[in-house]
Formats: sequence, C-alpha cells, structure tokens
Amino acid sequence: MNDSVRITKDKRPRARDIGIHIGVFSPGKYNAITDVKGVLVGHCTLIQGHGPLTPGKGPIRTGVTAILPHDGNMFKQKVPAASFVFNGFGKSIGLHQVNELGNLETPILLTNTLNAPIVADALIEWMMKENPEIGIDTCTVNPVVGEINDGFLNDIQGRHVKKEHVFEALTTAQSGQIKEGAVGAGTGSSCMGWKSGIGTSSRVLPQDLGGFTVGVLVLTNFDGLLTVNGAPVGRKLGHIPFKDPGGSVMVITATDAPLYQRHLLRVAKRAVLGLARTGFYGSNGSGDFFIAFSTATTIPHEPTDVTLQGVAMTNDALSSLFLATVETAEEAVINSILKAETTVGRDGNISEAVDIQKLVRILRDYSIE
Amino acid sequence: MNDSVRITKDKRPRARDIGIHIGVFSPGKYNAITDVKGVLVGHCTLIQGHGPLTPGKGPIRTGVTAILPHDGNMFKQKVPAASFVFNGFGKSIGLHQVNELGNLETPILLTNTLNAPIVADALIEWMMKENPEIGIDTCTVNPVVGEINDGFLNDIQGRHVKKEHVFEALTTAQSGQIKEGAVGAGTGSSCMGWKSGIGTSSRVLPQDLGGFTVGVLVLTNFDGLLTVNGAPVGRKLGHIPFKDPGGSVMVITATDAPLYQRHLLRVAKRAVLGLARTGFYGSNGSGDFFIAFSTATTIPHEPTDVTLQGVAMTNDALSSLFLATVETAEEAVINSILKAETTVGRDGNISEAVDIQKLVRILRDYSIE
Amino acid sequence: MNDSVRITKDKRPRARDIGIHIGVFSPGKYNAITDVKGVLVGHCTLIQGHGPLTPGKGPIRTGVTAILPHDGNMFKQKVPAASFVFNGFGKSIGLHQVNELGNLETPILLTNTLNAPIVADALIEWMMKENPEIGIDTCTVNPVVGEINDGFLNDIQGRHVKKEHVFEALTTAQSGQIKEGAVGAGTGSSCMGWKSGIGTSSRVLPQDLGGFTVGVLVLTNFDGLLTVNGAPVGRKLGHIPFKDPGGSVMVITATDAPLYQRHLLRVAKRAVLGLARTGFYGSNGSGDFFIAFSTATTIPHEPTDVTLQGVAMTNDALSSLFLATVETAEEAVINSILKAETTVGRDGNISEAVDIQKLVRILRDYSIE
Amino acid sequence: MNDSVRITKDKRPRARDIGIHIGVFSPGKYNAITDVKGVLVGHCTLIQGHGPLTPGKGPIRTGVTAILPHDGNMFKQKVPAASFVFNGFGKSIGLHQVNELGNLETPILLTNTLNAPIVADALIEWMMKENPEIGIDTCTVNPVVGEINDGFLNDIQGRHVKKEHVFEALTTAQSGQIKEGAVGAGTGSSCMGWKSGIGTSSRVLPQDLGGFTVGVLVLTNFDGLLTVNGAPVGRKLGHIPFKDPGGSVMVITATDAPLYQRHLLRVAKRAVLGLARTGFYGSNGSGDFFIAFSTATTIPHEPTDVTLQGVAMTNDALSSLFLATVETAEEAVINSILKAETTVGRDGNISEAVDIQKLVRILRDYSIE
Repeated sequence: MNDSVRITKDKRPRARDIGIHIGVFSPGKYNAITDVKGVLVGHCTLIQGHGPLTPGKGPIRTGVTAILPHDGNMFKQKVPAASFVFNGFGKSIGLHQVNELGNLETPILLTNTLNAPIVADALIEWMMKENPEIGIDTCTVNPVVGEINDGFLNDIQGRHVKKEHVFEALTTAQSGQIKEGAVGAGTGSSCMGWKSGIGTSSRVLPQDLGGFTVGVLVLTNFDGLLTVNGAPVGRKLGHIPFKDPGGSVMVITATDAPLYQRHLLRVAKRAVLGLARTGFYGSNGSGDFFIAFSTATTIPHEPTDVTLQGVAMTNDALSSLFLATVETAEEAVINSILKAETTVGRDGNISEAVDIQKLVRILRDYSIE
Repeated sequence: MNDSVRITKDKRPRARDIGIHIGVFSPGKYNAITDVKGVLVGHCTLIQGHGPLTPGKGPIRTGVTAILPHDGNMFKQKVPAASFVFNGFGKSIGLHQVNELGNLETPILLTNTLNAPIVADALIEWMMKENPEIGIDTCTVNPVVGEINDGFLNDIQGRHVKKEHVFEALTTAQSGQIKEGAVGAGTGSSCMGWKSGIGTSSRVLPQDLGGFTVGVLVLTNFDGLLTVNGAPVGRKLGHIPFKDPGGSVMVITATDAPLYQRHLLRVAKRAVLGLARTGFYGSNGSGDFFIAFSTATTIPHEPTDVTLQGVAMTNDALSSLFLATVETAEEAVINSILKAETTVGRDGNISEAVDIQKLVRILRDYSIE
Repeated sequence: MNDSVRITKDKRPRARDIGIHIGVFSPGKYNAITDVKGVLVGHCTLIQGHGPLTPGKGPIRTGVTAILPHDGNMFKQKVPAASFVFNGFGKSIGLHQVNELGNLETPILLTNTLNAPIVADALIEWMMKENPEIGIDTCTVNPVVGEINDGFLNDIQGRHVKKEHVFEALTTAQSGQIKEGAVGAGTGSSCMGWKSGIGTSSRVLPQDLGGFTVGVLVLTNFDGLLTVNGAPVGRKLGHIPFKDPGGSVMVITATDAPLYQRHLLRVAKRAVLGLARTGFYGSNGSGDFFIAFSTATTIPHEPTDVTLQGVAMTNDALSSLFLATVETAEEAVINSILKAETTVGRDGNISEAVDIQKLVRILRDYSIE
Repeated sequence: MNDSVRITKDKRPRARDIGIHIGVFSPGKYNAITDVKGVLVGHCTLIQGHGPLTPGKGPIRTGVTAILPHDGNMFKQKVPAASFVFNGFGKSIGLHQVNELGNLETPILLTNTLNAPIVADALIEWMMKENPEIGIDTCTVNPVVGEINDGFLNDIQGRHVKKEHVFEALTTAQSGQIKEGAVGAGTGSSCMGWKSGIGTSSRVLPQDLGGFTVGVLVLTNFDGLLTVNGAPVGRKLGHIPFKDPGGSVMVITATDAPLYQRHLLRVAKRAVLGLARTGFYGSNGSGDFFIAFSTATTIPHEPTDVTLQGVAMTNDALSSLFLATVETAEEAVINSILKAETTVGRDGNISEAVDIQKLVRILRDYSIE
C-alpha cells in the first residue's frame, strides 16, 4: 500500500490564501467540514503506473475518502440525515434508506463509479466487525457510498480500491485540517476543464442566528465554466463546456445544528446553489448527489421506548443556515480545484491544475476579493 | 341555505352494523376520525333542482366537508402534517407547503373539482378573519383543499359551493359521530359503480403498541371492482371498471401519535393499501391524494426561539400504526359506500346505492365477517 | 379598468442595454420567452390608491401575468410540460397534474399569493367558455397558477385581481417584445432588496447542438445578495439578506425542443442554477416553483388511438439545452430588477429601483461585461 | 457449484392449479413475466450446510435471480424503465439513474441484502466483458440490483453469492416457464409467516384495450396477514404480523406496451396495490422497491441524432394496463408462497411452507375461486 499512497505536499493555496473571500459569514477554525465538532475525514490515495491503459492493471489514479459524523459506533448511534438527488445520472448507494428512516448509520465513503459496490461491500464488513449482530440478531446495515467517474485518468475498469484501502481511509480519519485536491476519491477527478478533487469549507453562524457551524466537503468532477467569486476564469482561459462527457459531483454537508430529516433535506438542496455559482450547470452526464447530516444528536439503534425526544431548528431560523450552506459549498468547490495538482493518468491523459498566477491576475482584473 | 341542505336519515348501516369486521385492531368509540381527540368534522350539503342540466344553474348535488385538527386557531397553532400523491391527476390545493414546512395551518376542506379554488379562497377569508395580520404583519396562509369530480350527478360547472357554505361546514364541525355517505363533499360522488361519499373509521392500538388512536376519513369517487372484506361484491353484481372516466379519492388520516412530517408521510402512504383491498386500482383518471396529521402537539406560528422541542415515535414502533392505518382506510371506504343513498342528479343520471340485502347475501356466501 | 392599469414607460434598460452579457449562447430576436415560436405573454397591472393600508380597499399594487404556449385551444391541444418544486413554501396551483400526465392544458397565470385561488377560478371559467363540455361530457380542467407575496406594497388581503383582469391578461397576450419589471404579477414584488417584477430572456442553440430556442420568464420576489454577472452589487450597495420574510419566485421555461415530461423536469430544474448566480439562496420563506413546457408538439385531448407517436431529444443532447436554460434564467432575473421602477405602496412602503448609474459603476469596477 | 444448486421438484401447485382465479383478465401462455416477449429469467440457488450458524461459513440458503428484458446487449440497446420506492428501508442499487435517464441498461439482479454490492460488482464485470469500452471510450454502466433480507434462514453475513453465481443466473436465463418459490434470490425468504420466494404471473389485455401483455415477478419477504383472493388465510391459520422484523419485497413489472419513463413509473406504482390485496401493509422494516420496463422499443447507447422517435400509450388507455398490473402482482405474490417448500436454515430456523390442504379448505369455506 505505502508505495501507492501519495503524500500531497500542500504547496498550492486555498481560496482564502490568495485573497478570495466568498460570502458573508466567517469560516470556522480549519475552514473545513471538520469544524463541525466530531466529524472526521480520512483518505486513501492510489497512484500507480504510467503510460498506456491496460484495463484491470493500470495506470491507477483513484482512491477513497471517508467522512465520519463521529468516532463512535455509527450503527448503534446513528445521526439524523437526508439525501437529495439533483441529477440522478450516478451510482450512489444507500440514499433511499437515509431519507426513509431519516438517519445515517455508517460513515459516508466516496470513490470512483465502478468501485462503488466493492467499497460498499467493504463498508458492510467494517460495520459487521464492530456490530457482529448485524443480519443475525438485528437488521442489516445500509452502507452509504458516493462516486465520480475518474476514467479519464484512472483505469476505472480495474476497480483498484479494495477492502484494505477502505479500512485505511476509515482508520486514519482525523479531525482538524483536511487534505484537499487530488487525494482520496478525488485523485482522478477533473472539474470544468481542470484537475480537481476534494475540497472543503465551513461557516459559523453569529450567535444571534443560532451560532451553529456548517461544513461542506465536495468531490468535484463536473462540467461547466469556472467562475471564481464571480470572475469568469473559465471563459478567460478558454475552458469551454461539452468536452468531457461523464462528470458528477458529491456534496456532503455536516452541521451541529439540531435538525430532522425534513430540515436536512432542505439544507442538502441548498448546496446545489453554491455549485451553480462556480459554473456548475447540471450537465446530462453529471450525477449530482447531496447528503446532509446533523451531529447535534444521535439516534439509538435500539430505542427503549416507542417514542423519542427531539429538538430541531424552526423553519424560520433556517434561512441563515441555508445561506451559509450555499457559500460554504461554493468555496469548497473552489478549494477542490485550487488545491489539485496537475495529474498525468492512463494513456498519458493530462488533467492540468489551474494556473494560480493566471487565476490571480484574472481575479485582480475583476477586482474580486 | 336551509332548503338546500339535506338531512341524511341515517337509515343505512355501517360495515360493523351488518357484521363486517375488517382487520385485527379495535375501533374507537365512534369508529370515526373524531376518535382522535380534538378532531372535528363538518358538512354542508347542497341539493337543489332536478332534471336536465343547465350549466351554471343546476341540478346541484355537491357540498363541502371540513376536517379540523383542533378547535383552536390553526394558523397560530399548526399541527405536524404530510401529504402523499399516488396519482396526481387531481386538483388538490396546498399540498406542497405541507410537506416543505411539515405542518398544516388551516382546516382541510373537501369539495368538487371545479369548486376547489373558490373553496380555497373562502378558507383564506376565514383564516384572515381569525388572524387579521396575515399578509400584513406576517406571512400569508396556505389553504388546503381536496376535491373529487362529481360531474356525473352535479352541475359541476356551476361551482355552487360558495363562501357561506364553507363557513357553515367550518362552524358546524363537531366531534363524536360523523355523517357519512352522500353528504358534504360526497353528495355527488360515485365509487366503483355505486353511490358513495364520505366514510370514516378508526382504530385504537393496544397499550403495549403505544395505545395511540388513528382515524381515517375518505371521500370516495374512484373506479374499481368493489371488494368487501375479501368478498368480490362488484364482480358478483356485475359492476365492471372502465365505465366512468374521472374519479379520484381524498384520504385524510389523523392520529394522536406524536409524529413529524417524515413519519406522517409514511402513514399517509399506507392508506393507499387499504383502498387497494376494496377494489381500488389507481385508474388513470383517479387523482389520489393523501394527507396525514398528528394532534399530539402544536407548532406555534411565531416560535420564541431558534429551536423547538419535539417528540416522535421511533421507526420501529411505526409498523403497528401502519397496519392500523391500512385497515382503517379499508373500512372507511366500505362505510362511504354502505351509507350512501341512491341519488338522482343532472339529466336524470342515477348513482344507485349498493343493495344491502344482496351485499349481505354475498358476504354470507363467502362466509365474510 | 383603464385607470388602474399602468403603462410602463420603458425608460429603464435591460441587461444587454448596459453591456451586461450573460453566458455563452446568443439570445433570440426579442431576448424573451416569446422567441419560442407561438408563445404569448399578457399582463394586467393594477395600481390604485396611496397611503395607509385599509385591508380590502387598498392601496393596490398587484396584477396578473399570462403565459400562453400557443394561441389555440390549450385544452384540446395540450403541450408537454413538467414542474419542479425547489422550496415548497408557496401556494402554486395545478402542478401535481402537470407531472402526472406530462402536459399543460391551460395557459399559466401568475399573480399574488392570496389571489391564486380566484385567478384559478377565473381560468376555469375561461377554459369552460372555450370548451363547454368540461365537467359534463369530458373530464375537468387543471388550471395552473403561480404566485408571489406582494404584501409589502400591496393590499394583498384584498385579492384585487378579479375575473376581468385575468381575462384581460389572456386576451391581450402577445408575441414579440414583453413588458418587464413592475407590471402584471410583478407590480408589487421585490427582490434582494430592490423593486423587481417580471423579467425574461432567451437563447438560441447553434445548429450543430440542435438549433432549438429556450426562453425563460421569471417573477422575482426572493431574498439574497444581488450579483450581476459575477459582480457583488448587493454587498457593495449594502443590501443584506434576512430583512424581508416571505419571498418566492416563479420560473417559466419554454422551448421548441421536442421533449417529454421527464426531459422537461430536468430542464425546469436547471433554471434554479441560473437564479443562484444572481444571489438566490432559497431562503425559508421563498416558495420556488418551476414549470417547463415544450411547443414542439401538441397532445390531443381525445386521442383517436391507444398510442401516440412522439419525438424527443436524446439524453446526451440535453447538456447544451441545460446550459442555455441556466444562463437564460440568470439574465431574466437581472432584467426583472433592472426594468422595475421604484414603487411606493401601502403605508408608504417603498421598494426602490436599483440605481442604474451606481450599478454600472460597480460593474465597471469589476470589469463585468 | 453443482452440489449447491437445488433443483426444485415443482410438486407444489400454483394458484390456478388449485382453482384460484385472481382478477378479471386472462394470463398469458406461461402465466409468467416471460410471457412478455423477449424477457428471460435465470436463477442460481445456493443451499449448503445445516445446523448452527457460523458467520461467514453457513448454513447457506440464498441465491440470485436475473431478469433480462431481452437477450441482446442491454448496454447498447437499453429499454425504457422506471422505478418506484414505496418504503425506502432497503438497499436496492441503481434506481436513481433509471428514473433520471428513463432507461435500464443492464439485466435486473435480485439477491440478499448484504450481497447486493458484490452482485452489483459482478454485474459491472459482466457488462464490461460484453462492452469493453465502458469507462474508457464511453461512460460507465449502471448495475441494477434488488434485495431482500434472508438472514432468518441464511448466513447473510457470509455474502455467499459470488461472481460465478451471478454469471450462472445470467447465462442460464430462459424464456417460457419460470421456477418459483424457494429458488434463486428467494431461497431464504419468508413472507407473512410462511416460506416464500420468487413468484410470477401475467395478463394479456383484450385487443380493444390494446392487446398488450404485462408480466410481474416478485421476490416476497414481507410482513402481513396472508389473504388469498380475499380469504383471510393468515388469520385463520394464526399467522399474525409483527413477529419478524426486516422484510422487504422486490417487484419487477415487464410489458410489451410502448411506454416512456413517466408511464412506467405509474405502472410500477400500481403493483403495490396488488401486494396490498395479499396482506402487505408496508411494515417499517419492509423495503419495498418497484421497477417497470417496456420491451416495445430499445434505446441505442449512442444515438446518431439529437432527437429520437418514440411511441407511447395515451394516458387514457393506461387504466386497463394498471388494473392488469394490480391483479398480476397479486397473483405473483400468491404463487411465491404456494410454490415455496419448507426450508430449514441456520440454527435450525424453520420457515414452513403453507399447508396446501388447509389453505384449500379455507378457500372452500370462503367460496373463493
């Protein structure tokens, strides 16, 4: 494994490092989904081989990313959750049950499209180790897996993400700063004509609006005309849509605000508005899936009563959380592109990193800050 | 008004009066939606004129039925609610907001299809009288109105249900026993080849399953092959589908179980299974709309905090409530047909009441109890 | 009527008049929804009275806007259509049936929230005049009405839009240039802190992408931070969200591309992305409803066979139509604000037009074109 | 493999063999989903070991069932399809894309819950063998897999269905008569207190209603009170609900009627009504998923034009197809129980076949035919 894991050198800047300030609210300490207390993120990055594609062999440019709502037993202590599908041309697994039961009972895993089932199977195994009663003395478990098509760079037919890679992403998941760009499930992705990958951001609401934190993690692989805080970077640099079929985006929104499934569905939906501001237009080939969860409470697997106490934000109070979600999602997308390094994949296919100097110059021309 | 309101003589039996016992749970005191404490039901029945149709004049065979979750100010004290659309070929009003905000802020009114807007407008007026700040110092109000097409008997183009009829249904709404059959919004409806109308039923769960009450009120106007607790009454009596286009059914489920919108959506859905057991097959022309609400709590219009405490049944505990909803809906449909008297409408069109003697004979042949 | 209808003087510019060029595709001749051949738009604008609000009397700042897919009999010749609800906190009427049957059988009317039922009733009457068999020899009709809350300026409780105003909007509907801004249903609306109203735009796809035309008409009344082709106009001019509760937006997308309901649902959804680029964030109080229809074919009310021939774009070909829809919706929103003149309403409430000079200066600062 | 495949002896009757005639339409030649021309069904049944459960080892009582819309290359020649989720407490894979794109591009596979990902992965491999360009020169593929929880009899943690079993089900799929009961994915299922499994049925519409064929295949594992053509068999034999958590049902509806996704969604929904008539009540633990497809046309993977010609039934004509779907689904459920033999599984758990003699006696008591 070790030889296939790339350690990103983190030389490329995030949006705020080069003076891009998106939105009106302030980010949390790490400006990351992990600013939502308890949330952990882990990656396993697979890079191996060069040159012509030999399906099943390589070159490999892929990986898996794990988002854990908390570090406890997710099956025993589920979290309120919801899912929203903007464009169903994708292969995400497990979203029906999230909406029906209103909860998430596993970490969320992201990977490449054809690997989604193997990753789901690995997640089932992980959950059974921790909960040996699954399928025997209690019901089964609902693995939640999202995906993007990284076949432009990666030997996607090879389904190279195996059980051990999933376990590595899960066991190495951390709070605090998160690796972004071409890591984990984002190793082989491209977005609006540039190399992209994992991006994240967060916002903390003012106390009089509830003081809650919202964090977004995106895995970007969609078509569009890159727009950075309003500046038409894509058009200026000649990156035009309709070149790449395929695409897709996964958006995970976490918050410590107390919310039920109905509220979380509304939050999950708002993230698509943030994407739109970066150039996303929901191309046919883009499977666009959104998951939101709350860490404010946990739901026991085996309740001791027929009813359960709860608490949730009122409808009226949600507007500020919605706006925060929109701008957090926007910034997460920009980070996913800024942080990603040029990657050469199968058959010498190149996904180039956006040129930071040129981008800064365009931003300056447009007075964007 | 008085001359146009028919006092049903209640000579026809309900299902249990002739030994039909549907399902495994026991009904409440009145075997009606009003067994859910606080729920009120009111009808205004319009019957006027005979003979050839003069569009806009008559004959009139229609009405309005009001279901009130409680007798307080519904705008100030909303109730948790959800809506489900099985077949969207219908003109119900107000259902989007019920699901988005998870609540109901007006009584539910049922009427004929072309009258739905006028009835909604009357409901707005009713709500504004009670809450003069609507649209001025606070937001607007979401009137919820369901409908069926009674044009076979009624001068439906005439939209004869006026504001005063709506107000009458609202002000005369009562708890306890409910008029069923050809009354209120059911005055002109037909179901599976027979006269039908309003029907209701209820179930009380055993204490170890939570002890909650569920009540259903239906307005039946759909196509199908009447089946009574398993007996093929429609086939035996030669009432075959596809004769009547149009159709539709409205199903209102009330419960005192503590539930949020997500749970109530699941409850609302189950009622369609009860309909299926009576012969319902969801014909193209049948707009099939389901609303469920809970009386366990109220939601203030202007919360004093950004969060609100709640309580709801666990997912696991819902199964018994689901089964109770299915059998309550089934019995409500049967009651809506049994109680309805033969009605002659426009152009001499006749919707015949099912013959109780023949029906009982068939049930006996099939040993149905 | 005449004294209450305002003739907009059309002195204010549209986006392109002041050098704002949104997106990559070219608009049609009128840069309006009417560039889709056959589509007609009509307004009836109601302005009456000044000073303190007397509920039911005025002041009146409201109206109705009609969008007709063709000038024939819509009931007899329906058009393929779909609806999408982004935020269901609204009172639109008729959307369920559009999705279930995949068609639109009336013009679409827009008005104020509390007036929606009366306008729907007027539309029923209009349709019955043209089709006297409705509800007698054939099924009923499904009126489609959208709304926004104009209560900040208008005596919304008064429901001043009457049957004659609806008929006026329908009979005066025209092809070609459309009045925008504070006209028709947009007379009393506000958007992101400024006066707004009706806006429209269109795009024509290049021949190699199908050569189809897409047009959007919006009625804007939502909260957000106005962004004009990327420039943060709202922030620069100090218009911050959360001031106005309520809100809502109606978006009508027309196209001559051959599409079925499934495709049109996808098209309708994309328009929300265009809104996002203008500052829309889907606030709690904003009911956001989207309708899309195709004029490529008509569907007979009474088909002569059990099957019907059709033609539709392939999934792959839709991407360019999606992108065109996004940018058309974005430009329509900007037009709805640019064209709207300052309006003083009930209780002296003022909704100010955006200052064109200041806006142009900001755009110049941001090099936006 | 051979030693683990059970050859069902087919001694148990189907519904019609013992005089049960459900509904009003006539079945096709085989009274099976394969009466829809071109449809193939294959099973691989896994039975191995006895006695105490050793998770990962056995005993094994599971399998996989394949439904192929045609025997060609499904990726190259997709079929129109839709999916409906009644209760999302399940782990079906691939349903989002079916609705978004309106087609099915792989066979449908059914298996046990925890095996769904491995079976999906095998299906990906199967499709790539036939279409080596997947993920390289064209987009990826959307495997469609349904599941039920057979953990009461089967070592479900073991995920014993492997790639070779999937391939066996696919390669041995046949037209004509189908094995029902405890075979394939139904090997370990139970329904309403009895052994169940795979069941099927079909109907042929009269020529004046279009002459189309509809076929249903079910995999039954749900809770309820068994009702056979109206007779309360479950209650009479003391099989009461709420004993078994878990559950679920998969329902596949095929037809040669020309339909688009919107129509097929409506057809898929109707099947739940047939289930309701057998005792299904949608218990919390029952994940209830419905897929419908049409064999009337195929959709090329790479269309040569931006538009595609089509043909579909009119809305009005659908009612008879809906009714046929309801009764076909009802009969398929009954067959799934009648044909299933008593099965002893892990830890000696017994799922007993319904006693045919007793059942016939009850039917006779109830004069059911």
